[in-house]
Amino acid sequence: MGKLYLVGMGPGDTKNMTDAARTALEEAELLCGYTAYVELLKPLFPQKKYYSTGMTRELERCRYCLERAEEGICTALVCSGDAGVYGMAGPVLELCSAYPNAEITVIPGVTAALSGAALLGAPLGHDFCVISLSDRLTDWSVIETRLRCAAEGDFAVCLYNPASRHRPDCLQRACDVLLEKKTPETVCGIARNIGREGEQIRLLSLKELRDTETDMFSTVFVGASATEKIGAWMVTPRGYRK
Amino acid sequence: MGKLYLVGMGPGDTKNMTDAARTALEEAELLCGYTAYVELLKPLFPQKKYYSTGMTRELERCRYCLERAEEGICTALVCSGDAGVYGMAGPVLELCSAYPNAEITVIPGVTAALSGAALLGAPLGHDFCVISLSDRLTDWSVIETRLRCAAEGDFAVCLYNPASRHRPDCLQRACDVLLEKKTPETVCGIARNIGREGEQIRLLSLKELRDTETDMFSTVFVGASATEKIGAWMVTPRGYRK
Repeated sequence: MGKLYLVGMGPGDTKNMTDAARTALEEAELLCGYTAYVELLKPLFPQKKYYSTGMTRELERCRYCLERAEEGICTALVCSGDAGVYGMAGPVLELCSAYPNAEITVIPGVTAALSGAALLGAPLGHDFCVISLSDRLTDWSVIETRLRCAAEGDFAVCLYNPASRHRPDCLQRACDVLLEKKTPETVCGIARNIGREGEQIRLLSLKELRDTETDMFSTVFVGASATEKIGAWMVTPRGYRK
Repeated sequence: MGKLYLVGMGPGDTKNMTDAARTALEEAELLCGYTAYVELLKPLFPQKKYYSTGMTRELERCRYCLERAEEGICTALVCSGDAGVYGMAGPVLELCSAYPNAEITVIPGVTAALSGAALLGAPLGHDFCVISLSDRLTDWSVIETRLRCAAEGDFAVCLYNPASRHRPDCLQRACDVLLEKKTPETVCGIARNIGREGEQIRLLSLKELRDTETDMFSTVFVGASATEKIGAWMVTPRGYRK
């Protein structure tokens, strides 16, 4: 019987890590994850054992961690942001029935929707949706339906994975769907390299967003109809002023 | 010119606070917030000045903080969870134009959608919506439209404020709207007293949720059609197994 911690490290460097995440990493003997995140941890925890794999080797990484925990090794699988939001908690738990001796705990972290929102102001101050534009594991038709429903419900929307080399135009296509219901003037924002070198934000209209190039280091926010630009901030009011 | 930090403390006690939140609280001279959260901080930071107000005095609290920062006092306004998700970042930024000498920074925190999800497993492992059932500042018709769109888009849904003394039946009404599109067997979960004494979770079907009493200390999760109960966990798969 061994513990397996699924740990969200928050965005970028380690300054948005929670105390609970740090405590779990201190307890673990073996720290696993995507190579870039593991490299951030080595200077903080030089005495640990490490195991890292590349970007598309998710299930292999999950199984490796479950096997080690099953063997009695206290293991932590680290994710950027939160372990449960497009992270590794899902696939690990999907596999966990085969590893009854791995005792799993999920440690939440600050996902990019929250950390990007904080840089922009309060774009998610009222009801919101989080949608990934990656069609690697989801049919584009499902993504399009969700975008349409998000616009129909006048939600503020946070878009993950707004672009990659293989799908350079997906943000444009997503904006076209949102523009069926949201006005071209809808206040939008982009947060890039959150918590890392080169951190930057930009406020723009939905019409401008449509024709803007982003990348896999960006998180995109599309306002609700009530969302305002106040000074340099993007704010979705909850209604306290009424 | 004074700094004003809007700080999300994460859920419950202070173990889900980030390093960045702690650093901001250490720097501030004056810590403000809702009474219950401020009481949590006093043992950690006994040397600070404090200002607290009750539950419905939000705008007064925001103005007080902006005024103190304007006077040059480094101030932190603390919120449970994240400052931007139904928190005080919105109302502060709405008022900030009148206080040009207050230098505002928003420090994100782990909101109940993430911390409750972690206790349940990974209910928000794919696209999701966050909706508050409180009609104190939002018309119920808007809430109902959003619930309907969330169900139509087959999102996993996280419900904040599922009940209060003044609206004991709003979760039931919300479930009835969701049941127009989601099946009665949809996997749901409740996380209560997250990170606090009496922390508990429960998995149940949407049909059962409809007839379950909750309270203001609960966060409710309603699955997407793909959401599964795996052992004792609630998991919304992203599709890695395909």
